[in-house]
Amino acid sequence: MPELTRMTWREAATAARTGIALLPIGSQEQHAGHLPMGTDTMLAEAVVDDALTRLCGDPDVVRLPALPFGHSPHHLFAAAVSLRATTLQAVLDDVLDSLATSGFRRVLIVNGHGGNDEIMRLAVKQYSLRADVALAACSYFSLGADAGTPGHAGVFETSLMLAAHPDLVREPAPRPAVTPPPLFAEPPYPGLTVERHGEWARAGGSTDDATAATAAGGTALLGRRGSALAEAIRAFDLATRETHASTEGEA
Amino acid sequence: MPELTRMTWREAATAARTGIALLPIGSQEQHAGHLPMGTDTMLAEAVVDDALTRLCGDPDVVRLPALPFGHSPHHLFAAAVSLRATTLQAVLDDVLDSLATSGFRRVLIVNGHGGNDEIMRLAVKQYSLRADVALAACSYFSLGADAGTPGHAGVFETSLMLAAHPDLVREPAPRPAVTPPPLFAEPPYPGLTVERHGEWARAGGSTDDATAATAAGGTALLGRRGSALAEAIRAFDLATRETHASTEGEA
Amino acid sequence: MPELTRMTWREAATAARTGIALLPIGSQEQHAGHLPMGTDTMLAEAVVDDALTRLCGDPDVVRLPALPFGHSPHHLFAAAVSLRATTLQAVLDDVLDSLATSGFRRVLIVNGHGGNDEIMRLAVKQYSLRADVALAACSYFSLGADAGTPGHAGVFETSLMLAAHPDLVREPAPRPAVTPPPLFAEPPYPGLTVERHGEWARAGGSTDDATAATAAGGTALLGRRGSALAEAIRAFDLATRETHASTEGEA
Amino acid sequence: MPELTRMTWREAATAARTGIALLPIGSQEQHAGHLPMGTDTMLAEAVVDDALTRLCGDPDVVRLPALPFGHSPHHLFAAAVSLRATTLQAVLDDVLDSLATSGFRRVLIVNGHGGNDEIMRLAVKQYSLRADVALAACSYFSLGADAGTPGHAGVFETSLMLAAHPDLVREPAPRPAVTPPPLFAEPPYPGLTVERHGEWARAGGSTDDATAATAAGGTALLGRRGSALAEAIRAFDLATRETHASTEGEA
Amino acid sequence: MPELTRMTWREAATAARTGIALLPIGSQEQHAGHLPMGTDTMLAEAVVDDALTRLCGDPDVVRLPALPFGHSPHHLFAAAVSLRATTLQAVLDDVLDSLATSGFRRVLIVNGHGGNDEIMRLAVKQYSLRADVALAACSYFSLGADAGTPGHAGVFETSLMLAAHPDLVREPAPRPAVTPPPLFAEPPYPGLTVERHGEWARAGGSTDDATAATAAGGTALLGRRGSALAEAIRAFDLATRETHASTEGEA
Amino acid sequence: MPELTRMTWREAATAARTGIALLPIGSQEQHAGHLPMGTDTMLAEAVVDDALTRLCGDPDVVRLPALPFGHSPHHLFAAAVSLRATTLQAVLDDVLDSLATSGFRRVLIVNGHGGNDEIMRLAVKQYSLRADVALAACSYFSLGADAGTPGHAGVFETSLMLAAHPDLVREPAPRPAVTPPPLFAEPPYPGLTVERHGEWARAGGSTDDATAATAAGGTALLGRRGSALAEAIRAFDLATRETHASTEGEA
Repeated sequence: MPELTRMTWREAATAARTGIALLPIGSQEQHAGHLPMGTDTMLAEAVVDDALTRLCGDPDVVRLPALPFGHSPHHLFAAAVSLRATTLQAVLDDVLDSLATSGFRRVLIVNGHGGNDEIMRLAVKQYSLRADVALAACSYFSLGADAGTPGHAGVFETSLMLAAHPDLVREPAPRPAVTPPPLFAEPPYPGLTVERHGEWARAGGSTDDATAATAAGGTALLGRRGSALAEAIRAFDLATRETHASTEGEA
Repeated sequence: MPELTRMTWREAATAARTGIALLPIGSQEQHAGHLPMGTDTMLAEAVVDDALTRLCGDPDVVRLPALPFGHSPHHLFAAAVSLRATTLQAVLDDVLDSLATSGFRRVLIVNGHGGNDEIMRLAVKQYSLRADVALAACSYFSLGADAGTPGHAGVFETSLMLAAHPDLVREPAPRPAVTPPPLFAEPPYPGLTVERHGEWARAGGSTDDATAATAAGGTALLGRRGSALAEAIRAFDLATRETHASTEGEA
Repeated sequence: MPELTRMTWREAATAARTGIALLPIGSQEQHAGHLPMGTDTMLAEAVVDDALTRLCGDPDVVRLPALPFGHSPHHLFAAAVSLRATTLQAVLDDVLDSLATSGFRRVLIVNGHGGNDEIMRLAVKQYSLRADVALAACSYFSLGADAGTPGHAGVFETSLMLAAHPDLVREPAPRPAVTPPPLFAEPPYPGLTVERHGEWARAGGSTDDATAATAAGGTALLGRRGSALAEAIRAFDLATRETHASTEGEA
Repeated sequence: MPELTRMTWREAATAARTGIALLPIGSQEQHAGHLPMGTDTMLAEAVVDDALTRLCGDPDVVRLPALPFGHSPHHLFAAAVSLRATTLQAVLDDVLDSLATSGFRRVLIVNGHGGNDEIMRLAVKQYSLRADVALAACSYFSLGADAGTPGHAGVFETSLMLAAHPDLVREPAPRPAVTPPPLFAEPPYPGLTVERHGEWARAGGSTDDATAATAAGGTALLGRRGSALAEAIRAFDLATRETHASTEGEA
Repeated sequence: MPELTRMTWREAATAARTGIALLPIGSQEQHAGHLPMGTDTMLAEAVVDDALTRLCGDPDVVRLPALPFGHSPHHLFAAAVSLRATTLQAVLDDVLDSLATSGFRRVLIVNGHGGNDEIMRLAVKQYSLRADVALAACSYFSLGADAGTPGHAGVFETSLMLAAHPDLVREPAPRPAVTPPPLFAEPPYPGLTVERHGEWARAGGSTDDATAATAAGGTALLGRRGSALAEAIRAFDLATRETHASTEGEA
Repeated sequence: MPELTRMTWREAATAARTGIALLPIGSQEQHAGHLPMGTDTMLAEAVVDDALTRLCGDPDVVRLPALPFGHSPHHLFAAAVSLRATTLQAVLDDVLDSLATSGFRRVLIVNGHGGNDEIMRLAVKQYSLRADVALAACSYFSLGADAGTPGHAGVFETSLMLAAHPDLVREPAPRPAVTPPPLFAEPPYPGLTVERHGEWARAGGSTDDATAATAAGGTALLGRRGSALAEAIRAFDLATRETHASTEGEA
């Protein structure tokens, strides 16, 4: 599993010609009383690890070090290390521009934090207009036709952490139902985004009760997410490999 | 149907106490050879008109003038009047901040152009952290559980324009299939965003053949979209009316 | 009267070769108790309509949809939807850049709001350095050798609105004299700009008593402003048509 | 003539209570073959000197060091040290904010360069919304009811420099008429701003023939400009002194 | 060694009251043919590990995940993932602001890359003006009275990597002397910073021959750097612990 | 001593081919009770004057007018005219870009204020990546192997001002020792930058007692600083003259 941080610059430049650069991004933010601040970053990395293991080096993927900080202003009421939206946009734009300058033509961003999602998708749209590249982006939890709603610090993430980092999971406290449910998690009409000031504090910092989470459930979830990411990488490779070659022919 | 532009400032300030401000946003961009540049703006306005007619003034909605320009850098290869992403973010932030300063606590943005979608949703997330407001955002075409993929300058938009502005629709030319299909419209894996340089030009500026579009189909579509928006507005009103009142009681 | 929003992109691209793009800009802001929030936008549009009717299509002018929001921070004390100065600069820069990219070489901005004036003139100066274009800008009320001081929500604007949109004009309340007169309206020395914090609130939001305004006076004013704008467009066309052609010959 | 640069901070803080801070701004840019790069800065300072001498310390004016660089992108084709518009805006905003923080409530900017004019007026409008201050701005050449069109590196500036800095004036070369005259200097219709790419280079860098300039004419001009500025300062002082006092009484 | 990424938010909030947050920052950039791209990040982390081990938890230090990307525009000629200066400033400002919001009053940034040095020191100066905090910053290689000139990809860094990550060090190629020596590494006069376009490419990407590097030398160097950092942390703790307490008493 | 402000643009363009442009930068900020606000600017200019006199025109140096304002946010608690860091960065970037556009290939910035130091060094690093230039930067007080710690408004600056501008120096008041000494002036560990909120106010605005300052000491100091700057300019000229010539030969 080639990692950019361990490669010399010549190895990186060679890999750039045909490989795909992969950037994991996460967050440092409150995850209720039982999950660690780095949950989103660790889970993005765990899913990437799982997927790259499945791919066995085909296609060539060069893994960048994860960006450990994300856009979490809605969690600053408890604790977070958050980048403003403009800062995260700038970081992603700089990384994409650097990779293109170093010779990479294909880059994939794999995200583990909901608050990064629009910013990441916007970043690949923006940069693909500026250089002759093919860029992809996904959140590990929304990949695949069967992707459900993962929630924050609830059953979904707790199960995954029990599978990936059991030593970092404390006993979750039962979470009383929040009435009405938080608007960001359950919008009043499908397709409508609703954001209300103070809603995360009102909801107590999580979306659902985590006490039913199990390591077995997490292991299954992790496998499905890793498998989906592996398929997505293969599909991205196939869809952009030929085009890329023909573009080279024309130039 | 109260319009901000026609109200005096005292009428606006009174309506702000309990009403919902509604901002339509669209674009000016190429829509193949048969649809006008302002298609997205006109359709957002047509759906808003339909929805507000259905609501008959309950709840109170104050309609702002539509922002006629959107984020369309991917259409500049043909013709467009496009705002950069940072500019559109700034415009939406300024409008939200002005409305909050004028006393509005609830605002809904209704969008007609795919390229604005992330920016708009990000804008309401950002601003709701800064002031005690409840904000909503939607694209008229992705509202409701049955929302399909609308496409650009194809059957969906052409049908709607035949219903809303038949005098502005020219005869669509048959559109040969693009192989492989454009990556932005049909990503190689569900949930993956893929953007490739020059893809819109390769696809010839539209996503599907429009020759099967009909006015009757457009009328039905327009009704469904308008009905969905009306329901979304009612749901937003219900979800935020009480909270707003109780917040006032606390203060 | 060709409107960009109703043209296909090919029609727009054809018109761009020799035509002039015209962008009206206005505001949404308090206009005392008797005029609507959109007064400046409506008057800019009314004068543009009048001028384009007089010109009968010679020269070719492509009218863009009006920007309904302007720079009105000094009216936020009552009610306004205001763009910050940097936002309005960005919008104008983006529109000019888009038009130049789409092939237009000549653009005219027609403004209806005093607060936009410097920003607009600065925008055309800035952009003309970046691309081979000829750009013009004016406020409808300061055009022509006989241009007077129009005031805000006083006799001038009320008369024009009585002519252009009589249904939107409420009965103006008599306005007591403000002593000393507001510094922004009557600077203590000719050529000196003076701005004092809170001055618009002290002046009660308008510059002069509107009770003497008449529809007949407004009709005459509107005709003179429309006629002046028509002459200005002809003069801009003549001054830049030949140069433009010779520049093309050189290239 | 108190100069901020020579005062201790306590002297500055004391003067700030009732005095007016005065900031001269200029440029470094080509002024044809016979005038020096710093012409605009030197003339702004010469007029300020003349005015302050006439005022004899009534009212109290604290003179800041001149900002020697201005916004001159249109002169970079020859030679200039130019600040971008956003940079000059930031400098003026920072200076105004610093002065307000240090206790000054009244500031006057005196400008010597046409390219700074809109930016300067915009700066005082912007900042007066943020703090309880009274701000003024003028260009020395457009002050007073009899202000004419000064031109660039022509009779007006050359005469003034012959009066203020005769040792820095070289023999002006006769300047052939430019046909048609440069659009920035003689707009095709009164009140219309027209900017065409490359127009300053086409005009040869000046607006009119300077050979008729005389030191006597310059001395008279300098006196009239200095006298006008002195009157403007007195008028600004009178208009804002009482208000300022009463505001203090209220607070 | 408490790591923020592994702590729950309540643990982080508790630690914030008296502890010091420590952020390592590095780079991804070419390090000649024998060292990996992530050298600077790995060395900053190695020195931090060494220092924190020596401190044995006194004082309390909460370690943040390292920022793996730095400001390396001068290495983009070969390969790098570089953040622009404004982006790195924004990241550091956001991290400091988040930590202060989460309750931390003392933060230390430990840097491993020369190109980050001014930006980092500027960031702590800027932020300490905005909030009641005590901030520190250092580059691990310039800490202590005996700090020498470390160079880039030469004996210093190669020795350290042979000690910290021997598996990642390739055989260094002998490096011919560059005449004259690169201006950024050996300025022509002490205290003068000189930067010349293309100088890094001319120097071949490193500052000195690495073939004499040894693991033993690296181990000694690492110990001295770790020891110096441990002393610096103790000194920072002592210098700011009492003041912080007394400030709390005053409030 | 050629000054840009007094040269015509053709003289400037000619000098640009081989000469070095020199920009002094300073500040306007509190310097305790006995030194004037402009101390840093005046001392930078005095040292530049001394150095240029020693050089007698070899090499050719074109002196720009000093930027009289610097980055002094830490002195706003007393009185200062301060540019934000981003503003000063923009000013320096614009000046460097203008000079390069006008033909200068070599520029030296000479600084008199500690708060400008990182920003200035960062500016020359940034700009040298964008154009084929050789740029240098120094603070007059840190030039030369024997450069000590100058302090603020203490013996060092007071002595220099007694030599350069004795009429502007008031009697310094004895300054009691500040315990502990201010962290910015005496960091708790060598190489560590420490910044604490409110530290400049706690230290009373200066770093050391100035009562021992003498004119004779200042004259000696001024000569040593001027001599060091003259040598630095000669060294910069030698180091970049040949390279520049050979680059020209290649082009």
